[in-house]
Amino acid sequence: MAELFGGVEAGGTKFVCVVAEGPDKIHAQIQFATRQPDETIRRVIDFFRQQENRLGALTALGIGSFGPIELDPNSPNYGHITSTPKPGWENTSIVGLLKDSFKIPIGFDTDVNAAALGEFRWGAAQGLGEFIYVTIGTGIGGGGMVNGALLHGLVHPEMGHLMIPHDLNEDPFPGICPYHQDCLEGLASGPAIEKRWGQPGETLPEMHPAWALEAQYLALGAMNLILTISPQRIIMGGGVMKQSQIFTLLREKLLLLLNNYIKDPKITRDIDNYLVPPALGDQTGVLGAIALAQKAANV
Amino acid sequence: MAELFGGVEAGGTKFVCVVAEGPDKIHAQIQFATRQPDETIRRVIDFFRQQENRLGALTALGIGSFGPIELDPNSPNYGHITSTPKPGWENTSIVGLLKDSFKIPIGFDTDVNAAALGEFRWGAAQGLGEFIYVTIGTGIGGGGMVNGALLHGLVHPEMGHLMIPHDLNEDPFPGICPYHQDCLEGLASGPAIEKRWGQPGETLPEMHPAWALEAQYLALGAMNLILTISPQRIIMGGGVMKQSQIFTLLREKLLLLLNNYIKDPKITRDIDNYLVPPALGDQTGVLGAIALAQKAANV
Repeated sequence: MAELFGGVEAGGTKFVCVVAEGPDKIHAQIQFATRQPDETIRRVIDFFRQQENRLGALTALGIGSFGPIELDPNSPNYGHITSTPKPGWENTSIVGLLKDSFKIPIGFDTDVNAAALGEFRWGAAQGLGEFIYVTIGTGIGGGGMVNGALLHGLVHPEMGHLMIPHDLNEDPFPGICPYHQDCLEGLASGPAIEKRWGQPGETLPEMHPAWALEAQYLALGAMNLILTISPQRIIMGGGVMKQSQIFTLLREKLLLLLNNYIKDPKITRDIDNYLVPPALGDQTGVLGAIALAQKAANV
Repeated sequence: MAELFGGVEAGGTKFVCVVAEGPDKIHAQIQFATRQPDETIRRVIDFFRQQENRLGALTALGIGSFGPIELDPNSPNYGHITSTPKPGWENTSIVGLLKDSFKIPIGFDTDVNAAALGEFRWGAAQGLGEFIYVTIGTGIGGGGMVNGALLHGLVHPEMGHLMIPHDLNEDPFPGICPYHQDCLEGLASGPAIEKRWGQPGETLPEMHPAWALEAQYLALGAMNLILTISPQRIIMGGGVMKQSQIFTLLREKLLLLLNNYIKDPKITRDIDNYLVPPALGDQTGVLGAIALAQKAANV
């Protein structure tokens, strides 16, 4: 039997854990709501312990986490969730708690960088040295690769909080971001849609004006990412992007906004292959965590 | 005598050419207005020919160019200025014209990536794997490094065209970008300042409200760059940034906008060293071109 890896998609709403050899060989998967750190991490440890008893020892673990998180290996806070507004989770040493129980390499990155790595290994970003992965759900986050390596920098990207034009005449909704009011996340996350229209996005009909407005904001965000990083592809996932009509609207608006200024035919003539959903679908995050585990073990 | 390198800062308004061993050993420098391509490139060639006769053969040339430009070495158009609105310059093979006259390695990149490389080698970005260089003048452009290499991607960054919030009640000026109207360049470039206030920025007094508005737009641009790339430093140069009061206003507004969401002390406690002018001053661009030449010659 080949090597086994454990992956944790650590989300603010739910945790998903998986034991797998790779994307086509998943041996076990579990999902549960995110509670307080001690209880939640305990369930993660119990799951991997049980699977090790059943399947054999894990080679490495990977964690793609909500954040902000500390990624500097030289920091005493490496492996912590740092300044999250999520009650109880501030300064949680997620890597440390798992390290106490499993004496194996642990890969750690943002949830979106993990997802990006998953798409790079097995999905829509194979062979691309520059691409971006954005998720639009409870929050908005983005990660990706530049010059063939994951985007880190001083802290890590927080693309959900991009400031974009907001026409108050067209959309008087003030935005819900506690830090920046009407940043991209404040205007276009799932909770922003629900608060603006008084009902969850998934209950709004396909032709509801909510979707054209949503596409406009996401197109402005995508435009800013293109102008900053010049990615070879943008992958957009998360709950909100399951409204499949959004992709068509979003691609149209993006081309209108760019207005032929960036002339590469990969954008101007092939937008359907430039701005795409994740090829790994709902499994992008947790398979990305498996990819982080493999990377930590140099596989 | 050590090796000699030629550098060309190819701007839409002026060209600067230099022959140097490095930043502290500049042997000759010339500057002239940008005319039609044939005449302009002829002057570049004549300058380097004369200096070779006087000083000896050049080892390599470097060109930091206005754009957009083609940087894909596999493209038949590599080394061209491509879709520029500048009359006469569209599809000019700037590398090819120099290659015909000088059979030596030629480094080629955007003017802002060249400047970034200059600051990396000798200026404010030494030792940084992720940083951004932005120039605010006739236009606004940005380049930099991520994961230790210059930012290229599908085309190259065009950070000047970032879309940012524009409050029409506070600033009814519609913006002047022919592609995007009120993008960052449309609102905050030198010509935008001149058109909005009816006189050039350099003639406006230090306490004029123009500067607070300018700082607001540049802070929004800097914020979006931080949220996307998480750079370790942002260097801002160009003619507009010579109004030294702008840095103070800009740093204040940037911290207000970020609102302590990105908690790294390099930003929150040391903004004066985070958002800085270029250490090489007016020579950043042309010394960056020397750095490109050295890179092309593997020096």
